Amino acid sequence: MPVKIIQSAPSAYAYPLLIKHLLHTPLATSPDQEICYQGKLRFTYRTLRERIGRLASGLAGLGVEAGNTVAVMDWDSHRYLECFFAVPMMGAILQTVNVRLSAEQILYTLNHAKADVLLVNREFLPIVAAIAPRLERLRRFVLIDDEGGPVDVPVVFASEYEQLLAASSPNYDFPDFDENAQATVFYTTGTTGLPKGVYFSHRQLVLHTLGVATNVGTASVHGRLHREDVYMPITPMFHVHAWGFPYVATLLGVKQVYPGKYLPGALLQLLRDENVTFSHCVPSILQMLFAHPDFAKTDLSRWKVVIGGSAMSQALASAALKKGVDAFTGYGMSETCPVLTIAHLTAADLDAPEAEQVSLRCKTGLPLPLVDLRIVTAEMNDVAHDGNTTGEVVVRSPWLTQGYLDASQPSQELWAGGYLHTQDIGNIDARGYLKITDRIKDVIKTAGEWASSLQLEDVVGAHEAVQEVAVIGLPDEKWGERPLALVVLKPEFEGKVSEHAIRNASAALIEKTGISRHGVLLQVRFVKALLKTSVGKINKRAMRESLDTL
Amino acid sequence: MPVKIIQSAPSAYAYPLLIKHLLHTPLATSPDQEICYQGKLRFTYRTLRERIGRLASGLAGLGVEAGNTVAVMDWDSHRYLECFFAVPMMGAILQTVNVRLSAEQILYTLNHAKADVLLVNREFLPIVAAIAPRLERLRRFVLIDDEGGPVDVPVVFASEYEQLLAASSPNYDFPDFDENAQATVFYTTGTTGLPKGVYFSHRQLVLHTLGVATNVGTASVHGRLHREDVYMPITPMFHVHAWGFPYVATLLGVKQVYPGKYLPGALLQLLRDENVTFSHCVPSILQMLFAHPDFAKTDLSRWKVVIGGSAMSQALASAALKKGVDAFTGYGMSETCPVLTIAHLTAADLDAPEAEQVSLRCKTGLPLPLVDLRIVTAEMNDVAHDGNTTGEVVVRSPWLTQGYLDASQPSQELWAGGYLHTQDIGNIDARGYLKITDRIKDVIKTAGEWASSLQLEDVVGAHEAVQEVAVIGLPDEKWGERPLALVVLKPEFEGKVSEHAIRNASAALIEKTGISRHGVLLQVRFVKALLKTSVGKINKRAMRESLDTL
Repeated sequence: MPVKIIQSAPSAYAYPLLIKHLLHTPLATSPDQEICYQGKLRFTYRTLRERIGRLASGLAGLGVEAGNTVAVMDWDSHRYLECFFAVPMMGAILQTVNVRLSAEQILYTLNHAKADVLLVNREFLPIVAAIAPRLERLRRFVLIDDEGGPVDVPVVFASEYEQLLAASSPNYDFPDFDENAQATVFYTTGTTGLPKGVYFSHRQLVLHTLGVATNVGTASVHGRLHREDVYMPITPMFHVHAWGFPYVATLLGVKQVYPGKYLPGALLQLLRDENVTFSHCVPSILQMLFAHPDFAKTDLSRWKVVIGGSAMSQALASAALKKGVDAFTGYGMSETCPVLTIAHLTAADLDAPEAEQVSLRCKTGLPLPLVDLRIVTAEMNDVAHDGNTTGEVVVRSPWLTQGYLDASQPSQELWAGGYLHTQDIGNIDARGYLKITDRIKDVIKTAGEWASSLQLEDVVGAHEAVQEVAVIGLPDEKWGERPLALVVLKPEFEGKVSEHAIRNASAALIEKTGISRHGVLLQVRFVKALLKTSVGKINKRAMRESLDTL
Repeated sequence: MPVKIIQSAPSAYAYPLLIKHLLHTPLATSPDQEICYQGKLRFTYRTLRERIGRLASGLAGLGVEAGNTVAVMDWDSHRYLECFFAVPMMGAILQTVNVRLSAEQILYTLNHAKADVLLVNREFLPIVAAIAPRLERLRRFVLIDDEGGPVDVPVVFASEYEQLLAASSPNYDFPDFDENAQATVFYTTGTTGLPKGVYFSHRQLVLHTLGVATNVGTASVHGRLHREDVYMPITPMFHVHAWGFPYVATLLGVKQVYPGKYLPGALLQLLRDENVTFSHCVPSILQMLFAHPDFAKTDLSRWKVVIGGSAMSQALASAALKKGVDAFTGYGMSETCPVLTIAHLTAADLDAPEAEQVSLRCKTGLPLPLVDLRIVTAEMNDVAHDGNTTGEVVVRSPWLTQGYLDASQPSQELWAGGYLHTQDIGNIDARGYLKITDRIKDVIKTAGEWASSLQLEDVVGAHEAVQEVAVIGLPDEKWGERPLALVVLKPEFEGKVSEHAIRNASAALIEKTGISRHGVLLQVRFVKALLKTSVGKINKRAMRESLDTL
């Protein structure tokens, strides 16, 4: 295209989209606002900026250069926030290590990402001790230590985090560079194969920040994030940048609360004591908070919480509403930075009967600015937006990983046809609401048709005795597959309800709602617990493979 | 910097920041929302998208290609909105012509911008008739006609706008291209010299849209724009993209109301009938609405309005508050796309006495996301943020014109030292609030010190008899310059108050507030009217030069 490219005066500043530029606004608008760690430590944005400078100076002193990779193993902390900024701002790459992976997997990801330096919380030293001899490139370690005391691992620490900062200058001249420079890397916790690395540039993270802020800012009547909110993440910072919200919160200059390790009692206390108003978490964490003895005494009527990671059940959404919690769904994945859609209700929706509201809050909502989201057939044709016809969700946006790290075949599959393939099955209704009905690999093929395991889970989960449920497909000679519901009962119902009773109640509901012609083939089996992945997602593959031992 | 640039799968979509991508979200989230013209015509976003396609097809049929310039002379309309999208989306450049300039200036800007095609409202045909023979490159004209009837100008029209659309296909394949392609051009209405062209790329307009949306979305307690607002511009679309809000409103998928020519009665009627909740305008337009007979019967208690262009007087801000209008200041200029800062108050501010609120609403507020705004000395050193020390406002952001079109010397001066020089004098207070105290060329130098003409205007304007006031510096042998207040009296005070009385009241207030040591040298002169520029800004240069005839 012979378009005309804009002229630039020689001294004009072209303004690359770099993470460092996210700091201008909070430093101008709320330099005295608080960053708080576990309610024990608090400092201002002015200090945050100083500490970011000190961290960069300290890392430079350890030999970190542009293009190097700095890995972090920590719970959610002010330190992690400092790493979110300082490391990429140096031109280096931040590897956020999933601390819930096995030691072998962590070793694999550190080697695969070619990490040069590791900042590690004392709590994870046993892992480091186990893998240290087999680390290929990583030679420098910085200890993160809330407790103090002797360290007994065969690793030499270059410094302790706070000592490193204290000994280093706050004045670090963060340079300009190409906005397509890699800023972060982390590994997907897929249920098959080796972990795969996804990576994001400065440009992508800045655009994700603006896209998310625009979306959550402009929500009309609920679930909005504004500049006097108090933010606390409850999805880990090692997992897709804590959904990118630490960058959003910092840009807006709001009070931020970092909880350390997720302990339900401590989380509830922080929600109370720090007046937290905005969070995000997976359904199982919300469930955990709701089940805690301190839940009753915690006022959560000002709390807005985006739910993602797996589908929020209608039962959980109802319980949240009952408590006054403003819970609503977001959708995305490691490959997408992550946020793609969020479910905000309109003023009219909030006047609708509760069941309707609950249903909307459990859908995954409407796309964010600049997100081009389609549901397509295998031939990449769009399906009807009738709230019923399903297909694969494919997407474009300015913040999608452009591949898997050093893995060309999976990268090509991910981007087949120029759209990122989510491997999620879903539908879009007449209002544009996206609903995820399954993962491609979890979908149940019965009598040549697809049955949605998530819809069946909602049906089974509606029974009062059911605490958790996962529906998987079992090979069946006649039908191809038959749906099997693995059910964890609420403790008070154990021994008081039969598999048969739940099966019958579910079948009746399936017939009534007409959701699946072959749903009546459903079987029910009680299990002690569901298997989950390291980030708390239900692991259906593992359950299919080890049905006998559940 | 040896940073690591992210790898991309061959088929990965890199997602250039193009204006066409702003349309994904509204089409997914609110395809049935309304665009309304003058209350007479209304259609949906779905239709908007179709009409954008038709317009592009039609223009292509007239020979428009990527890199060409399409000029528009129209009042604020749905057609203008269509041009905001269709023209840049083709890879062509939209020239928004300031219809309030003289015919000679319009001729100059059309020739300077090398416009190829002109879309012109019937109302401006006399201008076109006068300049047509001297247009250097422009040969194709499209008539914009709300009324119909014969056209009597020596120009051949290729088509009429609606006929062109009706005859053209809605299916136009908008291509991808470099996000640094020029999207728009228009001319600054400076008070000296020839008009200067400023220009913006697709990338800049997309980033400005996200920056503004994030800012107005995340406002905490007032003045926020959300997805159920109803938007109507009251700063012209030919002037700095109507402050960029038509792009923001479209991205958010809100109802949009385009008023045509600004007639106070019609504006008030649209505000009432269409339930408009969000606008922006210059102080003189607000004044005009407030003075209209229909004002009393118009409920404006849900109306939020950003005030810019010139300083909002405290008297006007008070009057707005009294009416229930949520008026607050924004700051920017043609060179800056335009928005740089907006004055949103906090919850605590809204509890403060009204005088304090009014004062904050009249300051220009806090910087938008990614805006790096400084107040500097002539040597580019930052001044203290004490709310008192003044200097020039210089700025960086991702949406500043990178120069003046084909004017290398002014471009270099604009960007001296790598920051855009606004030529505005201001201060920043401890809270970070920017206050503009003067234009560099309007500042009054008395006894070797700078006196702020805007501050003096606030003092004089506080007198109940004063409708409008402009303070200029007059050469004075003893003092260098002496401030002279040119005052337009309210009609009901004519003949009932003397220049002397207002001078004395102002001097007393100056002494009391201590704003300017030499402010007491102020003189007052009554005039029939103030001279203004084509966009309604007070033209102090013209008044200095023609004092005798005022």
